[in-house]
Amino acid sequence: MKGEIIAIGDELTSGRILNTTSYFAASRLFAAGHEISAMVTIGDDPDHISRTVLESLGRADFLIVTGGLGVTSDDLTTEAVSSALARPPTFYPDILRAIKRNSRDVPDDLRLSLEKLAWLPAGAHVLRSEVTSAGYFLVHEGKPIFFLPGVPHEMKELLAETVITRLAVWEGEEPRQVRQRLYRTMGMAEAGINAILAVFEGEEGIRIGYYPVFPEVHVSLTVTGVDAATVEARFNELDQRIRDSLGRYIFAIDDQTLEGRVGELLTAAGATLALAESCTGGLVASKITRVAGSSAYFRGGVVAYSNAIKVKLLAVPPEILSDHGAVSEECARAMAVGVKELAAGDYGVAVTGIAGPDGGSDEKPLGTVCFGLATAVGVESETMRFTGNRQQVQAAAAGHALNRLRLFLLKSDKVTE
Amino acid sequence: MKGEIIAIGDELTSGRILNTTSYFAASRLFAAGHEISAMVTIGDDPDHISRTVLESLGRADFLIVTGGLGVTSDDLTTEAVSSALARPPTFYPDILRAIKRNSRDVPDDLRLSLEKLAWLPAGAHVLRSEVTSAGYFLVHEGKPIFFLPGVPHEMKELLAETVITRLAVWEGEEPRQVRQRLYRTMGMAEAGINAILAVFEGEEGIRIGYYPVFPEVHVSLTVTGVDAATVEARFNELDQRIRDSLGRYIFAIDDQTLEGRVGELLTAAGATLALAESCTGGLVASKITRVAGSSAYFRGGVVAYSNAIKVKLLAVPPEILSDHGAVSEECARAMAVGVKELAAGDYGVAVTGIAGPDGGSDEKPLGTVCFGLATAVGVESETMRFTGNRQQVQAAAAGHALNRLRLFLLKSDKVTE
Repeated sequence: MKGEIIAIGDELTSGRILNTTSYFAASRLFAAGHEISAMVTIGDDPDHISRTVLESLGRADFLIVTGGLGVTSDDLTTEAVSSALARPPTFYPDILRAIKRNSRDVPDDLRLSLEKLAWLPAGAHVLRSEVTSAGYFLVHEGKPIFFLPGVPHEMKELLAETVITRLAVWEGEEPRQVRQRLYRTMGMAEAGINAILAVFEGEEGIRIGYYPVFPEVHVSLTVTGVDAATVEARFNELDQRIRDSLGRYIFAIDDQTLEGRVGELLTAAGATLALAESCTGGLVASKITRVAGSSAYFRGGVVAYSNAIKVKLLAVPPEILSDHGAVSEECARAMAVGVKELAAGDYGVAVTGIAGPDGGSDEKPLGTVCFGLATAVGVESETMRFTGNRQQVQAAAAGHALNRLRLFLLKSDKVTE
Repeated sequence: MKGEIIAIGDELTSGRILNTTSYFAASRLFAAGHEISAMVTIGDDPDHISRTVLESLGRADFLIVTGGLGVTSDDLTTEAVSSALARPPTFYPDILRAIKRNSRDVPDDLRLSLEKLAWLPAGAHVLRSEVTSAGYFLVHEGKPIFFLPGVPHEMKELLAETVITRLAVWEGEEPRQVRQRLYRTMGMAEAGINAILAVFEGEEGIRIGYYPVFPEVHVSLTVTGVDAATVEARFNELDQRIRDSLGRYIFAIDDQTLEGRVGELLTAAGATLALAESCTGGLVASKITRVAGSSAYFRGGVVAYSNAIKVKLLAVPPEILSDHGAVSEECARAMAVGVKELAAGDYGVAVTGIAGPDGGSDEKPLGTVCFGLATAVGVESETMRFTGNRQQVQAAAAGHALNRLRLFLLKSDKVTE
């Protein structure tokens, strides 16, 4: 179906916040076989909201409206929509009860303001029975309109869980079958992947998308058609060909993360990990520990920002620091071995480099990062040079450290097979 | 003046590319005193481009149109605009000469296609005499329309260098003055802040916005009006009242981050920091080290995920772990003191808690987090209970740890004043 996305919020039109929710919605809806003909961003102005919703409704088959649904006085979406669609604001006692039940920790004086969330345009339905935040839909003149909160993580969750599924079963003209998969890759540039996969493109009903999500590149495969069996067969064939073509550059499928995949491999190997980080400053550890259950395989880490800590905690010989410097493969190896011993882990991973903006030299320019990996069978090291600003170098280095460990775990897995 | 931004490109409406150019334009134009009433994103469809430009032109005082100006067959903006505004495409030989002069490195077979860049709607002017890329403007029915390339770095350069300056000297009807400030707060809920600041709202030309950016809440103040002195006076008065009302809940203004503010306070105090993290798993260290120059005040940290590391590295007495558990104020205090000693820092900050999804108990439910702060004058501790999923608890705990340190540094700053 053809849809439009309307994002509401002064913080967007004043350029204070980058609008990532419309992008996320467009990408998911596109992948699900819909076409987004326009994305409109406007401020918290009731007249403007009313006019924009009516105009979009005249052109599109469905609307996604995000933002302006909260409890504060600048949240005006529901009010504006009630008036534009002549659907008077209606109080839904069930919604208020559910919200209150799910907001037990909210102090009493603030719970009063929650009542605003239970006033919706007449005919609206909440998107989830377990109401924890704003989010509803209504069908106006045969067209579904979804209202989602502007807070990115809430919006994304609701869109993925409720909007996409509702649209999929919507009684449109001719039901379309859609199969989709996302391949998360690391280590090859977008253009290189494009060159390899271009041969699969072009056929009607097959869409391959390339999305750099620094430092990863994501590839999406979408197969659409009318006949379910045909779609399934083409999808399976292409899925296999993409996997064969990209091989171990693919680190995960769909929603899995690199750190999640590393955790899976460590768990499968019954092995534990210790981290010694200099230039990434805890970013690798922070990624590892975002994963639920990581305490089973993650021993701990040292953020060895100063040389004193490298020597004292990680037992890096002072000669290495004086002869080769802290950013050297020698130092990375010593850090990896040191943290492996210190934390009694099966694997010790070390990162030391120059993230900038200062500290580069001709010999070791900004973006130079050395990696160490200590295992039961020895210690490896490698030097990379990343481009970008401080945070980009840190992100690239953290991703590379995790990916190296993944590749090593895959290799050693094969050896023991 | 009141403007609209139109971004053109299938890569945007299909969610393949995040639209950062409209955001950049809105933020610069807003800062220059203009108001952006709508940002519209559409695909490379000539009819849709024509219609959107005409509609926006009917509402706004000026337009910024980005994308679709290149040499390939899917670049259709100029053609669509020529037709919509009845300004026939016109060949500008001077432009072609300038482009060719500035594109010496382009291979011969591609140089032919450059000619497309010299066909502009009648009455158009290039934005820069040294033409190196697409980019032009025209005045239609008294309103300036700027056409900029969609490539972010080219667009940003042209916008900053040519559009903002041209608009600044534009003879509009009545120039509008705008003053704006963003207050970043932590420790009070959005609705609570709203309740306090509501008394300042409602007056014409004053807008207060509330944006939860978990775990922070951002508050924006915008004052607009015709007379510069009046706007300035009202802005200064409200700014002071908001600062007085929110006090130390405000941790930073405009673009500054919490970790940046903490770094500033540590630098001012000539003090150094060491971190011991359990449930935040390196997130606090990672935030601290995102800040350029943090090596001057950050000694390092320990991600003490296992109890063994808490005992071995941080010298947490085993009795504390057996009697009180790892998630206890006793443990947080010992960790803070331990890491302060270990890393020879002036401040030792410790975080230990239950981020979930497992590990909660009746006595210590999920989201229970203990904080320790060791200083030259002693050691403090505190227990908080956060709600949300694992990553939200981690984010809330990391923010709280930094904010506690900020408040302590402010307090000790006062003592030495």
